[in-house]
Amino acid sequence: MSQQQQQNGVSHRGKVLTLDNMNPNVKRVEYAVRGPIFLRAVEIEKELREGVKKPFTEVLKANIGDAQAMGQKPLTFFRQVLALCSYPELMEDSKFPVDVKQRAQRILSACGGHSIGAYSSSQGIECIRQDVARYIETRDGGTPSSPDNIFLSTGASDAIVTMLKLLMSGEGHDRTGVMIPIPQYPLYSAALADLGGVQINYYLNEDKCWALDIAELRRAISAARQNCSPRVLCIINPGNPTGQVQTRQCIEDVIRFAKEERLFLLADEVYQGNVYSEGSEFHSFKKVLFEMGPEYSSTVELASFHSTSKCYMGECGFRGGYMEVINLDPMVKAQLLKLVSVRLCPPVPGQALLDLVVNPPQPDEPSHATFMKEKTEVLAALAEKARLTEQTFNTVPGITCNPVQGAMYTFPRITIPQKAIDKAKELGQIPDMYYCMRLLNEEGICLVPGSGFGQREGTFHFRMTILPPTEKLKIVLQRIREFHLRFTQEFS
Amino acid sequence: MSQQQQQNGVSHRGKVLTLDNMNPNVKRVEYAVRGPIFLRAVEIEKELREGVKKPFTEVLKANIGDAQAMGQKPLTFFRQVLALCSYPELMEDSKFPVDVKQRAQRILSACGGHSIGAYSSSQGIECIRQDVARYIETRDGGTPSSPDNIFLSTGASDAIVTMLKLLMSGEGHDRTGVMIPIPQYPLYSAALADLGGVQINYYLNEDKCWALDIAELRRAISAARQNCSPRVLCIINPGNPTGQVQTRQCIEDVIRFAKEERLFLLADEVYQGNVYSEGSEFHSFKKVLFEMGPEYSSTVELASFHSTSKCYMGECGFRGGYMEVINLDPMVKAQLLKLVSVRLCPPVPGQALLDLVVNPPQPDEPSHATFMKEKTEVLAALAEKARLTEQTFNTVPGITCNPVQGAMYTFPRITIPQKAIDKAKELGQIPDMYYCMRLLNEEGICLVPGSGFGQREGTFHFRMTILPPTEKLKIVLQRIREFHLRFTQEFS
Repeated sequence: MSQQQQQNGVSHRGKVLTLDNMNPNVKRVEYAVRGPIFLRAVEIEKELREGVKKPFTEVLKANIGDAQAMGQKPLTFFRQVLALCSYPELMEDSKFPVDVKQRAQRILSACGGHSIGAYSSSQGIECIRQDVARYIETRDGGTPSSPDNIFLSTGASDAIVTMLKLLMSGEGHDRTGVMIPIPQYPLYSAALADLGGVQINYYLNEDKCWALDIAELRRAISAARQNCSPRVLCIINPGNPTGQVQTRQCIEDVIRFAKEERLFLLADEVYQGNVYSEGSEFHSFKKVLFEMGPEYSSTVELASFHSTSKCYMGECGFRGGYMEVINLDPMVKAQLLKLVSVRLCPPVPGQALLDLVVNPPQPDEPSHATFMKEKTEVLAALAEKARLTEQTFNTVPGITCNPVQGAMYTFPRITIPQKAIDKAKELGQIPDMYYCMRLLNEEGICLVPGSGFGQREGTFHFRMTILPPTEKLKIVLQRIREFHLRFTQEFS
Repeated sequence: MSQQQQQNGVSHRGKVLTLDNMNPNVKRVEYAVRGPIFLRAVEIEKELREGVKKPFTEVLKANIGDAQAMGQKPLTFFRQVLALCSYPELMEDSKFPVDVKQRAQRILSACGGHSIGAYSSSQGIECIRQDVARYIETRDGGTPSSPDNIFLSTGASDAIVTMLKLLMSGEGHDRTGVMIPIPQYPLYSAALADLGGVQINYYLNEDKCWALDIAELRRAISAARQNCSPRVLCIINPGNPTGQVQTRQCIEDVIRFAKEERLFLLADEVYQGNVYSEGSEFHSFKKVLFEMGPEYSSTVELASFHSTSKCYMGECGFRGGYMEVINLDPMVKAQLLKLVSVRLCPPVPGQALLDLVVNPPQPDEPSHATFMKEKTEVLAALAEKARLTEQTFNTVPGITCNPVQGAMYTFPRITIPQKAIDKAKELGQIPDMYYCMRLLNEEGICLVPGSGFGQREGTFHFRMTILPPTEKLKIVLQRIREFHLRFTQEFS
């Protein structure tokens, strides 16, 4: 035991592992999406079950993009194939369409012992990687994609952390610096804390609908060169938590910047299927990179990420995902393959699900009509809820909200009265945390404070998913409105 | 670009990320189970598919404990419940027994939106953690277990790496030292390389059937104190790759040693259901710890690990697992919960499967008879193959083999003639790697060289799974025998 611990004389002084001597990087990790507000929400749910009286009867968790927890139904085709993969005896059952059986058969044939219970190759099942490559080619208008560059993963988070890990090196001023947008999805800051990387913030422009601004990238990298070696540029498009969809021009500028500044690009594109605003369109970094010609397409290093958890699928629990690496040094790729092999393989049911996402029923197949109907309904409802959310919030004095062009969240700016800021300080809380905790306790609505994603000094926000069913979403928006007015009144 | 790279003038000098500047810890990672021999096996399989003539028609991969890849059938009950969880419309189907439906219903009721497609709590679904706790209590003769101490994981590997990560701290001589058995399962050395921990080898006693020797623990820790701060003791029981099953006395001695030396215990007990030798019995560290009285049970910190991948289940692809933590500082536990929340949750199908493993059909339930029949057959066949393997190898001059008391592997010692050792050196290969590569190329049998697990200087081994079906295993053993005699002859 260290002298310091002995002096502290805490009750855990006998422990081998204590808060004092544990991994300091882990202590620095923060993840607001399941942070204090979420933990309090779980407590309140327990209190409600135990009969404690509250001003509400259920907690509405709008803190996380978890579509099926909000009542979204999984797609029939996906789940039928998964049932057959789990229990192949159902292959004889006449109630399953022939395309469902064919898909299941194809996946099982690619599994060791024809079972999803066998380990797969560490990079992921080969025929699924082939399907992913074809999906990317189709999505990107014929830009070539190779299964050798596809790595299946345990959700997108796994692949993002793995790539960041490969990129970590140096000590002190030579430590790898990683540029991340602010506001960001806090996986990035958490992974950098854990890995000991240097976080370089670049601020998205809230006044321009959260657009990425190249001048701001220049400012950020130039400031960062004082204390680290910037090597990585992370992009989230469509944006989480901002809901912004980048223009093709912006992406081209970012790629040019990355080449000039010798940055490895990480493109988090898990919301690629979630674009709602008219005039907005998803452009993959890969496609734009290849359209810029060989000067770029044969040099700029890029890893892009996708997942089964978002879009119209919302299959978060399966932890399916992939990354595509472009221009990765072959020797580094061998190291990547070695690294992922230590964890053996991504979950095979998630791999199977990913295969169905990238290779859905075709127009001549029996499941196509139902599949398209279900998919279209989900996406139409999301688009409607994106509009509804923006419009409602913008009618509330003290809340301003950019259009939700894509993804699954709104990140409105809230005016918190000075007296409330003072009150929060008195309680030792960040003002938007105080705001969200009050909202949770008084209305049963669980959001994530803007400080969990990062925001410009002196501004306050929260992140809310647009996933609740429309009727419920209307109630939520109404209750946030009432709370906000009451809160503002109280501290006026 | 560094000066060194410019001097190297390699063809990848333009890359942002190169072998020279990537994470040096990742470069140090080795994982022989899917190392060069395995990669060559995959190549050979491709060559065979392309019609290349070989002295064999298929590659037999005995490198990894992947039961279903070797043809073991998944248990009907498990897969029926998983099918219903995937596609709940099957709940109406009369061909599924009522207990299958009840289990599926119970799991779905505990999922967000009643769907395995929703994220679960990061620690794992609560009712599944309750079932795990009850399973542990029953297994350990009533020793209490709390769901709050259970963390579900993505296979056992995930939880092991997470615990090791928490335990990493210090620099230079204060760096965390972790005692691991030699031979070890190379996840441990790989994780320590990745995390920058100090590996402290303690050697198992091959002459005493790979028993753990407390005197050797003392030697190892005393030597290690010169250059690190030993804080962790890892145990693999039943042993991988050794197949050894520790006696109750040994476990008690280890616990006493851990308490004296202030070590955090990590007990890898994923083979707890795989015990074959008469007179051998699995004792969990948790149970022995509690039987030693409050002086131990209320102080010694322990994390133990289990998985759905081994035992009679062999459901590797689902990546299910759990750990139980004992006497973990509550503030550290909060940090652990925060850390796992960044990755959101373990795959939910794997959690569901784990629930079935810890809560199998009961005698009064309709699936019980089939379940017991299938389980018993798998375990009886494994016991038979464990005996067959030991007996056969011990008839080969130059191969000696301890009894496979448990787990799924044999780790026989092979005599490699000096001329073969010289030949390997000439080729720049480790002798047992040369041996295994020759075996693969000549007989199509994929094993893992002993050097991948660690072995005493000057001794050579390989690891082979006992999982091939009995008839195939007999052929494999025969071919290894022939190869060994031929190899010995060639270099005599």
